[in-house]
Amino acid sequence: MPTTPSRGAAAIGQSGGPTAVINQSLAGVVEGLRGQDAVTRVLGMRRGVSGLTQGQFVDLGAVPPDTLERLARTPSSALQSTRDKPTPESCQQILKACRDNDIRFFFYIGGNDSADTCRIVSELARDSGYGMRCFHVPKTVDNDLMQNDHTPGYPSAARFVATAFMSDALDNYSLPGIKINIVMGRHAGFLTAASALARRRDDDGPHLVYVPEVAFDVDRFIADVQEVFGRLGRCQVAVSEGIRDASGHEIGAGLIGGEKDPHGNVQLSGSGALGDQLANLVKARVKTSSGKAPRVRADTFGYLQRCWPDPSPVDAREAREVGRVAAQAAVRAEADASVAIVRTGNAPYAIETRLVPLREVAAKTRTMPPEFLDGHRNVSRAFLDYLRPLVGDLPAMERLPG
Amino acid sequence: MPTTPSRGAAAIGQSGGPTAVINQSLAGVVEGLRGQDAVTRVLGMRRGVSGLTQGQFVDLGAVPPDTLERLARTPSSALQSTRDKPTPESCQQILKACRDNDIRFFFYIGGNDSADTCRIVSELARDSGYGMRCFHVPKTVDNDLMQNDHTPGYPSAARFVATAFMSDALDNYSLPGIKINIVMGRHAGFLTAASALARRRDDDGPHLVYVPEVAFDVDRFIADVQEVFGRLGRCQVAVSEGIRDASGHEIGAGLIGGEKDPHGNVQLSGSGALGDQLANLVKARVKTSSGKAPRVRADTFGYLQRCWPDPSPVDAREAREVGRVAAQAAVRAEADASVAIVRTGNAPYAIETRLVPLREVAAKTRTMPPEFLDGHRNVSRAFLDYLRPLVGDLPAMERLPG
Repeated sequence: MPTTPSRGAAAIGQSGGPTAVINQSLAGVVEGLRGQDAVTRVLGMRRGVSGLTQGQFVDLGAVPPDTLERLARTPSSALQSTRDKPTPESCQQILKACRDNDIRFFFYIGGNDSADTCRIVSELARDSGYGMRCFHVPKTVDNDLMQNDHTPGYPSAARFVATAFMSDALDNYSLPGIKINIVMGRHAGFLTAASALARRRDDDGPHLVYVPEVAFDVDRFIADVQEVFGRLGRCQVAVSEGIRDASGHEIGAGLIGGEKDPHGNVQLSGSGALGDQLANLVKARVKTSSGKAPRVRADTFGYLQRCWPDPSPVDAREAREVGRVAAQAAVRAEADASVAIVRTGNAPYAIETRLVPLREVAAKTRTMPPEFLDGHRNVSRAFLDYLRPLVGDLPAMERLPG
Repeated sequence: MPTTPSRGAAAIGQSGGPTAVINQSLAGVVEGLRGQDAVTRVLGMRRGVSGLTQGQFVDLGAVPPDTLERLARTPSSALQSTRDKPTPESCQQILKACRDNDIRFFFYIGGNDSADTCRIVSELARDSGYGMRCFHVPKTVDNDLMQNDHTPGYPSAARFVATAFMSDALDNYSLPGIKINIVMGRHAGFLTAASALARRRDDDGPHLVYVPEVAFDVDRFIADVQEVFGRLGRCQVAVSEGIRDASGHEIGAGLIGGEKDPHGNVQLSGSGALGDQLANLVKARVKTSSGKAPRVRADTFGYLQRCWPDPSPVDAREAREVGRVAAQAAVRAEADASVAIVRTGNAPYAIETRLVPLREVAAKTRTMPPEFLDGHRNVSRAFLDYLRPLVGDLPAMERLPG
């Protein structure tokens, strides 16, 4: 139940992987707090809660509006980020830092792990009787937050992926072969599925789309590639970095052999191992009609997907809005919550924001619903209808007849 | 010596790796031939000389101007490409195909291998007394053609690389670690060097730039990374796909173990092996002050570098111009040649085109001159002054103070 807010400082942090529009959300919170009597100072936490507990702040109230606007248009987390998972001890330190700095408004911009941090801090403040409003502002290119139609950051990353597949398909049309592109998204296939928006004609790539929601079977994959390549003489393939085999084992993580972050997330990005391994399989097993080995290449799109400086206009606007909504809810002393985006119309496209309990978003993962898939290697028209309004105009591309 | 051209058909081909502006050159040739009495038809060869010998043509004269304009703005080779190397037998077939189709104007858009094809065809036509003008139109993201200040395709790829490093540097600033990015360019460092244009402040990446023109030494590389990482707590590294060790051995090619094309070029792109290997070396040998292993990631930018649909405006204009110049030279019956771009001014930037003998470009490789390098791990101010006018405006990016 809402209580009267205490007067005091606000603190804003950014956490987890950055996006092209996460600074829009930062600017949105700052704007929403501007001129509010209850808010004495607006502090940016450097590196999320790590900076908070170490007293490392930026005075965001002193940032001129035109600088804030340029910052909002700059990709990646301006306050720097963290992947530290709060422990019982560090949570006590977070609360102590909030008390020490008279922080009464706590905003955390991030994904489901960040929502969980926000939840823990919220509960700790409540249990200790410290009057502080805690709001989670959604952000993730993985699009995997519960209660959200989609999450800020995803539409811009989807725009990059669709543009990349469109361009790369022309490259593969020009010098035909089998091209495998590995796409981010962790355990959710939304970002990989965005590749399908690249199609304009029946024979346009991506011809095969593999997401983590469907168990990946190597023999079936080889047969799929052989079928498309035999039919078209080329084959463009979209593969999620998080594909799993029938027993749920993450194929890429096993190949990369990288580290885990403190939330237990294994390394899936920043390596070309999965793409190279799939390319080697295809080279060994897929045959051309002449018996010659086909031309096979793999690209792993990597971090450019989440930081490319050409955001979706819809995404930029919505990322700003969820920050503003969180700030306004906090100064109205609404109950601690996560801001969620709900779609209210598709033609014309319309959304509204809702405040949902933190525990309904925290540490949970949404994956693609079955109606967004079409068999084991494609996405449905329903998914394309869902995605299209989010990404903005894609470049026009022409092909010669014949 | 110029001779009166025979009246007949023109044929245009695209060869080698595509670029973001190679269709501008195609449109330039078509425009330059339009309305010329000597030119009876304008044929596009499908897949370069492969399509020519198989009689697979597109009637480019029938393509409406607005379609041609949209095509010019579309990345990648609209006619499709080839990497076939002409043999004595296939050259006879090429000449026969030219005779059979009454082709009197031969245009080949491509890199140094394509210039060599053009040279062979030119000599064969001359030796057999067949009246045909042969012109090479330059194209390569590697920027490695002799006699050229720079080559169409390179400025747009450089624009992508600089933008990518700028964005990726913010990502690495946000979640600090050691980030290695592998860049195209084969044996020339020009494209990797373009990463340096991403810098705005003293501590901006890329902090280390390794090009094939300087022998790559693993121990020195590790010491470099350790030094930067110790100083800044992060390190962004640009590495050419074509780096070689002191004995000239291509490090990436050895790791990829891929195929050779018919020109003897080994596979350097379409694999993450070089980046992953360097990342593993860094993980094993670079230490943080706390003794913890640093966060190390590698991305291989891949084919997006040459097909991203956001060309440099200068590049688009010049690519069109070299096509037009080739067409006009051919109908004026100039001696067979390659069109070269020569810079005539830098402030303001100005170029002119020259016709140079085919043998001065064919099968030769230009690499970065010593004055473009600064030590073993950086580029010079002279290089940045050279590059800046080529790429167009880069996105503005803001950082918080402190």
